[in-house]
Formats: sequence, C-alpha cells, structure tokens
Amino acid sequence: MNKQLILKKRPVGLPDADTWELQSNEIPELKEGEVLIEQHFISLDPAMRGWINEGKSYIEPVQVNDVMRAGAVGKVVKVNNHPKFKVGDFLSNYGGVQQYAVSNGTNCHIVDPNLAPLPMYIGTLGMPGMTAYFGILEVGKIKEGETVLVSGAAGAVGSIVGQIAKIKGCRVIGIAGGEKKCKYITEELGFDGAIDYRNEEINTALKRECPKGIDVYFDNVGGDILDAALGRLRMHARIVVCGAISQYNNKIAVKGPSNYLSLLVNRATMQGMVVFDYAENYGKAAAQMGKWIAEGKLKSKEDVYEGIENFHDTFLRLFSGDKMGKLVLKISEN
Amino acid sequence: MNKQLILKKRPVGLPDADTWELQSNEIPELKEGEVLIEQHFISLDPAMRGWINEGKSYIEPVQVNDVMRAGAVGKVVKVNNHPKFKVGDFLSNYGGVQQYAVSNGTNCHIVDPNLAPLPMYIGTLGMPGMTAYFGILEVGKIKEGETVLVSGAAGAVGSIVGQIAKIKGCRVIGIAGGEKKCKYITEELGFDGAIDYRNEEINTALKRECPKGIDVYFDNVGGDILDAALGRLRMHARIVVCGAISQYNNKIAVKGPSNYLSLLVNRATMQGMVVFDYAENYGKAAAQMGKWIAEGKLKSKEDVYEGIENFHDTFLRLFSGDKMGKLVLKISEN
Repeated sequence: MNKQLILKKRPVGLPDADTWELQSNEIPELKEGEVLIEQHFISLDPAMRGWINEGKSYIEPVQVNDVMRAGAVGKVVKVNNHPKFKVGDFLSNYGGVQQYAVSNGTNCHIVDPNLAPLPMYIGTLGMPGMTAYFGILEVGKIKEGETVLVSGAAGAVGSIVGQIAKIKGCRVIGIAGGEKKCKYITEELGFDGAIDYRNEEINTALKRECPKGIDVYFDNVGGDILDAALGRLRMHARIVVCGAISQYNNKIAVKGPSNYLSLLVNRATMQGMVVFDYAENYGKAAAQMGKWIAEGKLKSKEDVYEGIENFHDTFLRLFSGDKMGKLVLKISEN
Repeated sequence: MNKQLILKKRPVGLPDADTWELQSNEIPELKEGEVLIEQHFISLDPAMRGWINEGKSYIEPVQVNDVMRAGAVGKVVKVNNHPKFKVGDFLSNYGGVQQYAVSNGTNCHIVDPNLAPLPMYIGTLGMPGMTAYFGILEVGKIKEGETVLVSGAAGAVGSIVGQIAKIKGCRVIGIAGGEKKCKYITEELGFDGAIDYRNEEINTALKRECPKGIDVYFDNVGGDILDAALGRLRMHARIVVCGAISQYNNKIAVKGPSNYLSLLVNRATMQGMVVFDYAENYGKAAAQMGKWIAEGKLKSKEDVYEGIENFHDTFLRLFSGDKMGKLVLKISEN
C-alpha cells in the first residue's frame, strides 16, 4: 500500500488540516518505461502554497483530489524496462507527497548518496540552491564590493544567496526572524550583518546595516520588507523577485510595494525569476556549488522532520518560521 | 521689471492658488559670463509636481520662496561676455517660470526657430520627447512585432512613445481619457487601438486590445492602470516606469502595484528611468526625431495657453487631463 497526501480543497489563507487527506491506496502496476520510486525525503517549499491556489501561475495548479505536488528524493525499487534508470538508483524527482511514486522519468535525475546526504539534493543541490545560484548571479548580476540584502536569509534559498554573494566579494546583510537565525547567518554563514525583523523596526535597522544603500535586494518575502528595501536603493540597484512568503496566505489582495517609484528615482530594476528557466544549466551550477561545499565555502543546513502523517504541521513551519535552513520531511525508514 | 512665479508653500494634494505667488522684481545686473534670457514659452510637465515636494528625489526640490523651476525656451537679450551665447540666440533652458532668467549657460542650448516652432523645443524635441525616445528604445528595448501599451497616450511623452513604437514595427495600444484623445491617437497618430480609461473598465478593455498580452508597457500613470497592465504581461515583458501621474497629488501613500508578482510569473522586468541620464545623446535623438518629423512619420502637438498669470490654472490641466499633447505656457508677446 502507498500512503498518499491528497489535496482535498483549496485553502483560503493559511491551510488548515482539512486541506489535505492522508489516504492508503494500492500501488499501480508499472507500464512499459516506468519506474517505481520509494521516496525517502520530501521537499517542503513556500512555493507549494502557490501551487494549491486556483488558476495557472508559472506552473499548473495541483488539482483537488490529486496527490500534493512536491520535490522529493528516493530510491528506484522497481523498473519496467526504463532506458535510463535501474533498481537501486537514487533519483531526485517531483513525485509528490506519497511513499511511492510512479514515474516515466520526466524531471528525474540520478543523485549520488555518497557525494552528499540525500536531503541536500532537494536543498542546496536542488531547487532552492539552483534558485539562489541563478537568481543572485544571473538576475541580481552582483559585482564585487556591492551591498547585497537578502530576506528569508536563514532559509533554504536566502542562506545560499548570501553565501554566494560573500564568495563573490559582496557585503551581505540578511533579514531573518529571531535572534537564533540572525546569529546563525552572521556567526556560522559569515554574513556581514543581520536584521531581526521580528524585533527591530526594519527601516531603522536597514539604515544601520546598509548606510550607503542597497545595490541588490533578493526578495523572498514581499510586503513591508520589500517596501523598506525599495526605500534604500542605490543608483542602478537590482531587485530579484523570487518570492513573497509574507503574502502567500493573504485573504485580501497582495500588498503592492508603495515605494516602487524608488525604481524611477534610482534608475533601478525589479525583475522576476522562476528557477525552471535555468534547467539546462543545473548541472553546471550543482558542480560549482558542490565544489564550494567541499572547500568549506558554502554551508548547507537541512531541518528534517519525520513522518508523512506530519506533513501538515511541518508545512506550516514554513510560514511560522519555526525551522532553520531547508525544511525536509523524512517519510521512509530506509 | 521681471514677473516671477514664486513657490510659497509645499502643497498637500493638488496645489491650490496659494501654492505660488506672482511677484514683480527687478532684473539683476549680469555678472561676467552671464546672459539674460527673455522667456517666450514655459514647459508644463507632470514631473514639476514632484519637484515641489520636500526631500530629494532624482533632483533637488524647489525651495520655498524660490522661482518655480521649469523648462523654457527664450531669446538672449543681453550678454556679459559669454563664451558661447550672443544676443538674439534662442535657448532652450531651465530658467523657471519668470519672464527673464539670468543664466551662466548651464543646461542651455541653442535652438533654431526656423527649423521647428519654438514650443516644440520644450516638447517633442525637448525633455518629453527625449524621455519617450530613450525610455521606449533603451529601457523598453522594443522589438518589431511586439505589443506595446502606453498610458498617458495623448500626452507629450506617451504620444511620442507610441509613434516611435509604430515606426519600429510594433503593435501599439494607447490608454487615454475621453473619446477625443482616443480618436486622436488612433486616427491621427496611427495607434492600433485605444482604451478610454474614463469610460471603459480597464481590465476588460485590455483583454480586448491586447488579446495576446503585453510585451512592453510604458507607464506614465501608475495606480490601477499599472496593476491592470501587470495582469496581462507576456513572458519576458518589460515595464518602463516613467511616471505615476495618478499618484502625484495623493494625500495618502502611493498605491503600490498589487499585481507585481506577475513579474515573477512572467519573468518580467520593471525598470525606472530619468531622462537626464541620457543627456549626452540628446543631440543624436533630436536629429533622429527631427528627421521623422520631416518625413511625416512623427507628429507633434503642442497645446499653448497664454500669460504667466495663468500658470496655476494651466498647470492644473496636467492633472485634470484637460489638454491635448504637450502643455505650454506662452509668456512673452514677442
């Protein structure tokens, strides 16, 4: 039997427990060219909140009564004549929140558990890491000596954004919630400064940490923090619009950035990005990130919870902020 | 004596008549290297509303009790040993709203009244025209076949933006207020379509006029129209943030664009611009625009009112929309 987390309704605001239903269903027979993946780790990402809204965004929404979409990493346990994958291969994949996923191999690729722990393949070496890499380098176009501000700075994407910017010779300030996260990014990750948005007035803190202004702001949160960052842009600044976690559970309209005319005053640019556009270069980026990790220049933290039955409670940690680094759910004992 | 329009207080919301005071003051003696310009035409631009707010924007604010800043075009009537300018020269300049301006020549350049009517030098061949030219070409980066949307489409900037986009082979839709302006841009300027924001629901109209979406939106107005445009972006769309006339007289905070996450979904860019950055290429642009005018490809309309004592009432036409094309105030009988 296969435990599957099914989307039962579209939430308004923060999802409640009734949003999903855990079902046990039979594992279907494999068709020609399919593999069966036993999932070990499920990726929990803020973007998943968007995937359960109605209407197409950058990706089709998850349909009600379908398995909840998620990135995952697991082991091939059965194969029906697949050209690339064999039993025993570990695959990063998009099989969703279920113990066993049937796949024809689309969006799957082999990962090596001897090179890095499996959860890292859905974190720093997976979608969040790729988002950070291409977002800060290709969209943010950081240059040595620039001041880079990143929100969600202790998270899966933000922590990597900041470290890459440090590697590239930037001055990096992170915004995070709570003293523990702020200490983590400065003391463990080497950020030049931290702003605790839960305990500091953001505009005052930004003035202190970015006295000469901001060259690049990597935005994971939107809302008031985006407005504050807009208020301190330097000339020709770039804002990377990666996400807006503060707005994902809104019951009212998204808060637009009142300070957007700062783009005009400062001849600045605000640009959106979706990581999937860079798929053909994931390999190159992962190799570079792996090298940085091996050299001790890039640190990766995964926060692993256990049990598919705990999906809902664990998912909510994305929005309460009660987690550190990449949020992962372990769903197999193997 | 020199009639001068003096800024007397910083308005909250729409300026009232007490914002300014018309004074008669003596014309000072010229110092070495100065010229005296008798102004013929004063430029009235939405940006001037921003110049009288407190606090630095992209330019220092006009100080209370100073002459109101404005672009102008006039004739040199007196010279004290100036290296470049002589009596009888016509100069486009930033001498402000007064009959006579003393200048050392900064930001002045000679214009030829035989090549184009004087008001055109503060319109299509001046700041608004340059804004349109560099905004749509350098920031908007339009390509043949793209759909270009422009707001304030019958105005000094928007009308030129749309015509340049047509010259470059784009499909051009303009947003303007009222039937007369909409007819003007389609029938006289050759736009492919018009949206009358005063009499149409903007989202419905955008769907009709831009069924495949928008590649480039040139924004002069901000507010709800910016949000509507964001809602119909195509992939890799560009938004040129040139102005936000709907917000300039706000007594409350600027309305931020709620739909800004469309930038993410569509990998789109929103970029601010200020025309002064392109000053060293004004000459080249003016030559190109002059050529297009001579070839009948570019039409320029100036809406000329008379009398420095009518500055306030004329200025308000910028915000009531009660004007067509470039708004100009004639202040000399010559």
